[in-house]
Amino acid sequence: MTRDKALVQIEEMDRQLVMLEHIGSVLSWDQEIAASKKGLDERASQMGWISSQAHELACGEQMGEALSALGADRQHPEGSGADDFEKALIRIRFRAWDKNRSMSTELVRKISETASRAHDHWVEARNQNDWDVFKPDLQEVLELAKEKAECYKREGSSLYDGLLDDFEEGMKASQVTTLFASIKPRLVDLVQKLSEKQVDDSFLRMDYPVDKQEAFAKLVLDDMGFDFSRGSRAVSVHPFTSTLGCDDIRITTRYTDPSVMDSFSSTVHEGGHALYEMGASWGRQKGTSISNGASFGMHESQSRLWENMIGKNENFWIHYYPMFKEIFPSQTDGISLDRFVKAINKVEPGCIRVNADEVGYSLHIMLRFELEQDMFSGKISLDDLPSAWNEKSREMLGIVPKTFAEGVLQDVHWSSGDFGYFPTYALGNLYGAQIWERMRSEMDVDALLKRGKLGEIGSFLDTHVYKKGSLYKSSDLLGQVTGKPLDATIFSRYLEDKFSCLFGC
Amino acid sequence: MTRDKALVQIEEMDRQLVMLEHIGSVLSWDQEIAASKKGLDERASQMGWISSQAHELACGEQMGEALSALGADRQHPEGSGADDFEKALIRIRFRAWDKNRSMSTELVRKISETASRAHDHWVEARNQNDWDVFKPDLQEVLELAKEKAECYKREGSSLYDGLLDDFEEGMKASQVTTLFASIKPRLVDLVQKLSEKQVDDSFLRMDYPVDKQEAFAKLVLDDMGFDFSRGSRAVSVHPFTSTLGCDDIRITTRYTDPSVMDSFSSTVHEGGHALYEMGASWGRQKGTSISNGASFGMHESQSRLWENMIGKNENFWIHYYPMFKEIFPSQTDGISLDRFVKAINKVEPGCIRVNADEVGYSLHIMLRFELEQDMFSGKISLDDLPSAWNEKSREMLGIVPKTFAEGVLQDVHWSSGDFGYFPTYALGNLYGAQIWERMRSEMDVDALLKRGKLGEIGSFLDTHVYKKGSLYKSSDLLGQVTGKPLDATIFSRYLEDKFSCLFGC
Repeated sequence: MTRDKALVQIEEMDRQLVMLEHIGSVLSWDQEIAASKKGLDERASQMGWISSQAHELACGEQMGEALSALGADRQHPEGSGADDFEKALIRIRFRAWDKNRSMSTELVRKISETASRAHDHWVEARNQNDWDVFKPDLQEVLELAKEKAECYKREGSSLYDGLLDDFEEGMKASQVTTLFASIKPRLVDLVQKLSEKQVDDSFLRMDYPVDKQEAFAKLVLDDMGFDFSRGSRAVSVHPFTSTLGCDDIRITTRYTDPSVMDSFSSTVHEGGHALYEMGASWGRQKGTSISNGASFGMHESQSRLWENMIGKNENFWIHYYPMFKEIFPSQTDGISLDRFVKAINKVEPGCIRVNADEVGYSLHIMLRFELEQDMFSGKISLDDLPSAWNEKSREMLGIVPKTFAEGVLQDVHWSSGDFGYFPTYALGNLYGAQIWERMRSEMDVDALLKRGKLGEIGSFLDTHVYKKGSLYKSSDLLGQVTGKPLDATIFSRYLEDKFSCLFGC
Repeated sequence: MTRDKALVQIEEMDRQLVMLEHIGSVLSWDQEIAASKKGLDERASQMGWISSQAHELACGEQMGEALSALGADRQHPEGSGADDFEKALIRIRFRAWDKNRSMSTELVRKISETASRAHDHWVEARNQNDWDVFKPDLQEVLELAKEKAECYKREGSSLYDGLLDDFEEGMKASQVTTLFASIKPRLVDLVQKLSEKQVDDSFLRMDYPVDKQEAFAKLVLDDMGFDFSRGSRAVSVHPFTSTLGCDDIRITTRYTDPSVMDSFSSTVHEGGHALYEMGASWGRQKGTSISNGASFGMHESQSRLWENMIGKNENFWIHYYPMFKEIFPSQTDGISLDRFVKAINKVEPGCIRVNADEVGYSLHIMLRFELEQDMFSGKISLDDLPSAWNEKSREMLGIVPKTFAEGVLQDVHWSSGDFGYFPTYALGNLYGAQIWERMRSEMDVDALLKRGKLGEIGSFLDTHVYKKGSLYKSSDLLGQVTGKPLDATIFSRYLEDKFSCLFGC
């Protein structure tokens, strides 16, 4: 096969795979939003069928031949790619081909079956607050994840690295360990200091009518540059972003949390994900894998940058708080801007990761990452996992979960064997802070925020991050945007500066 | 291949095809309900891909071999099927295989492309009230439909019969002509007489809050036996029913029409379709093509039976009007049951089919059927179609459309080349009346309605119609249920009895 023909084939197959992904997203979106209770089993079969079609294509003979004609191998996954687009396309397809083919069909089937059962038992265990209901399944999931990791294992990588690489291409566990170690004591210290501050945020938990919350969030989404002709929003049990088509990118939120800021923050968070997806879908890369984000961590950096660095910024609220007050006059009666901003930035250690404040959040992740390392190395057994969890929670956050549901059973990820996923949440904070620092050195972000010019901030991110899609690994992209390698202390410094300004500590 | 193996293969392929249909329905449901404006093109590709997968399977070599091993041919489409299930399965798969294979891929592509363009021009023509914007496309669509009909043409069939057969297996245009001719003068006469009655229905067009309309409709759907664990409802531009899975059957309505009865009737109508789908999905036939309705006409008979014969029945309202009054006290203040029932059964000729009353509706269909015949035979040219439409409207309904949008451009069907579809709406009325008559001879329907026992009526239909799915052609099914062949005068007699009782004419 000639190089040109192989390239045409690879791009065609890649576009086909992206379309299959989008069909899968439609099935899964509808499952979350509208599917009948009794229809869930068939929906799972429908999604399974689409996945198997995609798997066959991604790992099939035709793909293998084209990749080989393009000279892609483990040393040179980008093969004979002539420009950044071609290099990325070949690299992405080679990586998927190589990783997925290394697993037997039998193992893939076992992982999927076990995860499904483990998920049901995880729900049951949470409801009954009984670790032993979930433990045997987790043991099985863990063994299978290790088997998978063995298949993925490449020279110079640890067992865990292969799993981490599924979410964060090229990242090593050892690097994450070093990054986290460089800031953990400072975060622990900061949480402790800030949690001593008395901050009244009770007015955030008053009755805020949903239609008015929707109106306010719409206003901010519009300013952010969310394109409602290319996307929409809905309500779901857990907030998420989904790409159902290159021009059909949707976000959800929920209005069941006690604070008005929960749904607003989640809208801005998912809005950040959506802007990334919308921006990456352009030109030749539209409809190809290149229009995905660079990695899970880089994606999370954009949602968290919008949610926290922008959406909880005092300058942001200088512009938006008057509108917020106008929409919610009685709820904010007598609440000054200063009091409002302090309230939405209140630091209060809690057991639940998804409700964590900006400072404590990364500690929740470090806790999980450390436990994942210990589970993989065999340093702790699953019998000891709940107490190890509680001990780390006490050390890092100063609190001990009272129930398993508040502790070791709170997250769904382990039930599906997604070890290596958690770190990407904290990596997102690190990438985000470094990009934020860079942006502030290039433009007067504070002045823009004060005038509600979110579009100009969005423009910077669009040019430097979104439009790049997955042309580059996130480490390379970060280097291009910020001119330096990943430095975790930028994040801890950002937090120290912001919170000392706000609360004077 | 052995007969047993062939049968297993046919059933497997059929189940696969049904799953693909359901995936297509999810894509299309989401398109109607939630898709982004700019996402529609990609959605069309997604649906096209699913269709082409289904087409390949339905007309592929494996299917052909299995059908041949089962001895299916045009004389014996049921092949060596041993029982009703096997016979139906083989018959359905043979028919799809035989009809679809008779068209070239080139023709299928041309039909699909032309329909897409014709649809856009139909919208434009309607908006601009300009027949000439649509005429050239319709000419092309018509020529392609004729080409398709030539491919479908079998011994003893007319050109139009092959198209009609797509919607109503085995039905002939000549039979439809005879059926319609037997009742047309009586319907014309009845419409004319009834339209002279003075009936005040203005209170139906007052402000009826949507949430209360939803609550009332939910109450009736529950009583009908609509299973909300196997289905749901939503709001859309045009009401429809969709089967997204054997246990995920959804209906929609709209609240934009002026009368409160429009959304209620459409809910009951779609509810009837949904009950059919829910009932047909059981036992071995669940997940196979046998769980589809017997034909378009039979499906429509069930929606219309629920909508009109039940939902506009005086006895139905003896039970429900007190609840309706309780939910809408101010809107129904001073309106007696008698006045209410007369109002919802008001006969008033109008130009628009979808807004037609129970008596006039079938005349709208006859008009279209006659024009389709004339277009196919070449008796009228498309230049003359608008005036032919208006002339027939004057003859049958006593009114002449003032615009093309109110006349020849009002329906979408012709733009997609769906000639042969319209008659099934009226056939539904005929089947429905005959089944209704039979049901009344078996049980005291009036007494059941007066007590709101819709479930017992649903049970009769479930046993005699729904559970049969597409085991039998609709003509055979009708014979089994009612003990006689289709007789259109049962419908006209039903109308004469009902409306003479109500309005004394």
